[in-house]
Amino acid sequence: MTSADQAARPTANTSPDSPAKPLPTGFRFSGVSCGIKKSGKPDVALIVADQPVAAAGMYTRNQIVAAPVILCRKRTPAQSIRAIVANSGNANACTGEAGLQNAEKMCQLVADHVGCHADDVLVLSTGVIGVPLPMDCLEKGILKSFARLGRQETDFFQCADAIRTTDKDRKTVIRNISSGDQTYSIAAMAKGAGMIAPNMATMLAVVVTDAAIAPRDAQESLRQATELSFNRVSVDGHTSTNDTVLLLSSGKGPSLRGDALDDFQQHLNEISIELAKMLVADGEGATHILAMTVAGAETDDAAFTIAKTVVASPLVKTAITGGDPNWGRMVSAAGYADAKIQPERMCLSICGVEIYRQGNPIPFDEAALSATMKKSPEVKIELTVGDGAGKAAYWASDLTTEYVTFNSEYTT
Amino acid sequence: MTSADQAARPTANTSPDSPAKPLPTGFRFSGVSCGIKKSGKPDVALIVADQPVAAAGMYTRNQIVAAPVILCRKRTPAQSIRAIVANSGNANACTGEAGLQNAEKMCQLVADHVGCHADDVLVLSTGVIGVPLPMDCLEKGILKSFARLGRQETDFFQCADAIRTTDKDRKTVIRNISSGDQTYSIAAMAKGAGMIAPNMATMLAVVVTDAAIAPRDAQESLRQATELSFNRVSVDGHTSTNDTVLLLSSGKGPSLRGDALDDFQQHLNEISIELAKMLVADGEGATHILAMTVAGAETDDAAFTIAKTVVASPLVKTAITGGDPNWGRMVSAAGYADAKIQPERMCLSICGVEIYRQGNPIPFDEAALSATMKKSPEVKIELTVGDGAGKAAYWASDLTTEYVTFNSEYTT
Repeated sequence: MTSADQAARPTANTSPDSPAKPLPTGFRFSGVSCGIKKSGKPDVALIVADQPVAAAGMYTRNQIVAAPVILCRKRTPAQSIRAIVANSGNANACTGEAGLQNAEKMCQLVADHVGCHADDVLVLSTGVIGVPLPMDCLEKGILKSFARLGRQETDFFQCADAIRTTDKDRKTVIRNISSGDQTYSIAAMAKGAGMIAPNMATMLAVVVTDAAIAPRDAQESLRQATELSFNRVSVDGHTSTNDTVLLLSSGKGPSLRGDALDDFQQHLNEISIELAKMLVADGEGATHILAMTVAGAETDDAAFTIAKTVVASPLVKTAITGGDPNWGRMVSAAGYADAKIQPERMCLSICGVEIYRQGNPIPFDEAALSATMKKSPEVKIELTVGDGAGKAAYWASDLTTEYVTFNSEYTT
Repeated sequence: MTSADQAARPTANTSPDSPAKPLPTGFRFSGVSCGIKKSGKPDVALIVADQPVAAAGMYTRNQIVAAPVILCRKRTPAQSIRAIVANSGNANACTGEAGLQNAEKMCQLVADHVGCHADDVLVLSTGVIGVPLPMDCLEKGILKSFARLGRQETDFFQCADAIRTTDKDRKTVIRNISSGDQTYSIAAMAKGAGMIAPNMATMLAVVVTDAAIAPRDAQESLRQATELSFNRVSVDGHTSTNDTVLLLSSGKGPSLRGDALDDFQQHLNEISIELAKMLVADGEGATHILAMTVAGAETDDAAFTIAKTVVASPLVKTAITGGDPNWGRMVSAAGYADAKIQPERMCLSICGVEIYRQGNPIPFDEAALSATMKKSPEVKIELTVGDGAGKAAYWASDLTTEYVTFNSEYTT
């Protein structure tokens, strides 16, 4: 929130006034500044597990991947991870063989301190593309981050702050869960304000829990949660070279199987969606979240394709920006999605007001609906495209002049 | 060109000072106002052939199509078309059964005057979606347009003006062609300033020639030309419900077969590309054309997919707006296109300056290249994605705050 007139801007961050919540046991966190960012803001984050932990990872689908993604992909799922080291301000992407060596070096520096193998360290980078990592800075930063490790919420928040780039808000979720007679915690952090920001790449997220989950279960849980959350949001549709979501399970808490694992999955889904919506709410220049649901498609995948296509249209995005219930833009965008629709069965509601039914426009109070849209931080668009069983949800930011100004300013 | 400070804005219109060119024989043209547009600007266009002519059509790929598209699709290719009637200000899209009847009625009104069957009339509409056509106005407009029919360039221009919606510029091309000992003419008009504008749909184009071409040849020629031109441009990636390209051949000139037909194809391709680039240049708020070429892909289709994906990225578009040689955005966009690339073989040039070679950034004078980009109406982006033989060209407008302002202003 940068000014009072942004009243409609969605707020999706954790409240600073909420009481501190216990973090998952078995992890220490820190975030420090090492000088990669000229602003002096935190740019090195470290998470160290007390003992080897289970780890899962989900990564960008871009064919061009940053060096850290290449390393992490090889190393997950795993059961002996000891640490995650991350830097912001430099994406270590499109940096060739030297970039890979630098990512390895980051892991080795951490491994030397922890007393483990470099293969048991995961690495994340986010920031400018195509610039070599300043390894001198980073080495000092990693040293410093070891000195600051702690188990408090403030340590976790500092860690989360150190992965931010153009993010205006910190993005964290902490849940203390009671499931039957078992209790455990999940703590998650994310960063990202465009799928890729001006020369800044990456959506990153890290989830840690003390519940004991086998690596295969962790990988499957993370895959499911990611599909329903981080893979269902977009600011500008530009998939970065660095996108990574990691899950660590320390195993200090109860062992999760069967129903308990299902319950964990539900919490992980909710937390992931909460974080994903924070990304969209913090989208560069965003004033509204488009919360799109598609029903009646042939399959869930078809519904996903249609939802993604509609919210990607600049004409739909700008209609939301302007509070314009411009159903023609939404319906026609569904028509060019690469999935079958039944035009004569299409229905559309905006903010709960039905304005298109069975392929025909129906009268509605445009001024009233426009006023509702303008004041809603989250504008719900519910589209039915036929009589199939396929459905999907998708979240996107709107498109504002601020987005364009921010991304077209040339600052070298 | 609306103000002096838009120096970089591409100019793609025909010069008003060029001498009048002979139009293809066998056609009369008119454009009049009937009051659909509140501005009083021309909104009814009519083209009447002296005798039945060959006709071909290419249409939107949107699954939701306007009533005129449904009729035209049934009626082309054909060899007995007598007229094309068009209106602007109302798209007659998403108007259900009543819309179809209104489109039929427009054809019938024209047929009654010409003395032909309604099936021998083609119809085009462009403008607001979901509003019934004001048939009283239109009927008077069609009457008026018959009274104004003429064979002069000014008649052709009035006709072209009457299909404009948010277009700032008239879009026409007239060529007088000598091919061996044969001479003939091609005259073409188009409209469109967004693939879909605010509540305004449609890219429309009409090409007329006096060369004699069989309907099947005409259809195949138009298909080829459309693939290389109108299907390779985008302003905002939003495919309208009304997109239509029509070709009429009066047969008053020489009969084209073999090499002469190939020659005609070449001219038709060039004319179509010229018109398509006018659409992009006149894109809502556009300050530059992105002229993208992709080489080295596995197939031409793969190259097309990659080119389309790169120029659709808001981050690439805004980089062009700002004169920012931000190669990371372009290369990473190619990486998420739905076509295979070879990251280690990728090369990129902007405005002829090579800045990425075989997967590695190479030093260049950023300030100089930025200055070149800013002053170039057309910014050339040449991307090599591997060692395949596939290549493609694509043109798009950049993305400006004016586009967002224009499309987010709610004016009801």
